[in-house]
Amino acid sequence: MTVEVSRSELEHLSAAEVRKVIRDGRWSGTSKRLALGREQANIVILREKYALDFMRFCHRNPKPLFLIEATDTGDPEPKLSAPGADIRTDVPAYRLYRDGKAVEDLTDIRHLWRDDHVAFLTGCNLSVDQVMIECGIPLPHLIREDAWPSQYVSNIPCRPAGIFRGPQVVSMRPIPDEMLIRVIEITSRFPRSHGGPLHVGDPAAIGIDDLEKIDWGKPNRIEAGQVPAFWACGITAQAVACEIGIPEMITHKPGHMFVTDLAVVDPVK
Amino acid sequence: MTVEVSRSELEHLSAAEVRKVIRDGRWSGTSKRLALGREQANIVILREKYALDFMRFCHRNPKPLFLIEATDTGDPEPKLSAPGADIRTDVPAYRLYRDGKAVEDLTDIRHLWRDDHVAFLTGCNLSVDQVMIECGIPLPHLIREDAWPSQYVSNIPCRPAGIFRGPQVVSMRPIPDEMLIRVIEITSRFPRSHGGPLHVGDPAAIGIDDLEKIDWGKPNRIEAGQVPAFWACGITAQAVACEIGIPEMITHKPGHMFVTDLAVVDPVK
Repeated sequence: MTVEVSRSELEHLSAAEVRKVIRDGRWSGTSKRLALGREQANIVILREKYALDFMRFCHRNPKPLFLIEATDTGDPEPKLSAPGADIRTDVPAYRLYRDGKAVEDLTDIRHLWRDDHVAFLTGCNLSVDQVMIECGIPLPHLIREDAWPSQYVSNIPCRPAGIFRGPQVVSMRPIPDEMLIRVIEITSRFPRSHGGPLHVGDPAAIGIDDLEKIDWGKPNRIEAGQVPAFWACGITAQAVACEIGIPEMITHKPGHMFVTDLAVVDPVK
Repeated sequence: MTVEVSRSELEHLSAAEVRKVIRDGRWSGTSKRLALGREQANIVILREKYALDFMRFCHRNPKPLFLIEATDTGDPEPKLSAPGADIRTDVPAYRLYRDGKAVEDLTDIRHLWRDDHVAFLTGCNLSVDQVMIECGIPLPHLIREDAWPSQYVSNIPCRPAGIFRGPQVVSMRPIPDEMLIRVIEITSRFPRSHGGPLHVGDPAAIGIDDLEKIDWGKPNRIEAGQVPAFWACGITAQAVACEIGIPEMITHKPGHMFVTDLAVVDPVK
């Protein structure tokens, strides 16, 4: 019988230990605060026939989809960013898209894996949580257990590549006015994790009419003395899957990222 | 009748103007000091069937082959880094490899271009020349008209991807001892242009027995009070073409780079 691990237990484990707990079926929750200081990654798995176009798509859209690693075709091990890991079992939860629709959430995709699958790992904002904590930036999702960034489909288009095209998804965090410049400075140092914000201020300017109508994540109220800041978000790939109706795309379930061994502060490989 | 432009005339032109002069057949020399402050790029053109593996190869080896752009299949325009340019005519000189051998140097490859070709633009050390000038780093090739970095095949292997594998090529510059740390600091800020050195000091430690036996470039003597510093070099792709005997690879001729519109100091797109 497998026993679910508590989040407080999990938060003290290394990236490799976190992946082992997930692989053993003992954690299927979000990856918030796990292996702090290690790069967390969005996951997109596609058949090889789409891989070159998707790789060009990531490369042309580094803010939402900064490419951390593309695995060898058919090989589920991200050899550079998480040697020994298995991308089919080590993500807390997966989401399967067929013909542009989310059809199933799963915790293991070994039965779906094909010899012509390529897995793409792209950057994630949760990666800079340790930096935010060290810099004393009070992001709600780091203070309140149940809080999470709010995610929206914006009207900012991605640069297309082959069949891949669609809007950028953004993640919003309320930032105290007096911290805004510092937050832009700090996040700009981490281009692998979406870098600086795409937009700050009026949500309508990027096509968001009502901040309460979230597409993913949780609502965040903007209090007096705060400004909404919007970062590019890796869920963009899932919005694109819906937009183009691709026959199959396997992704992580939003918020349930893959934890790599890469140090967030050391981008050079 | 086309008239060759002088280098001193060329050095005052914008990147787009430089490309136009080259396209018009009025310059086929090296790209040293052209469009200073703009990213210069190594060029590799391959058939699409090799493109996914080569893109993974670049991504896994960012020091020698930092990917600046991969064009759409069959489209010779690098739309993001040099809109309006034509990769078939705008490089000062090309080198054609067949079955792993350099068979011809050309100044126009329109007759070789195929609908299934993909062009890859990767980073180049010449891009940081303006930075070196501004920082007062006296690199020989910036001081002496006829000087050039020395390039060698090292014994440091690339991380393989598909058929692509082989040794890293390095470019050596003599650095005054007292400037070494500054040069490492400065070049480390430009990962798109090979970043910090791969190695400093004993050439034998990376498989170079005799600094006078160059593979490309020009010899540089190490004077008293200087240390040899070795950076990863984009010619690595050409060494790999030779190593694996790929049926066809079209590249720039070493030293004859493609000049993009990208500002070296502004990597975020």
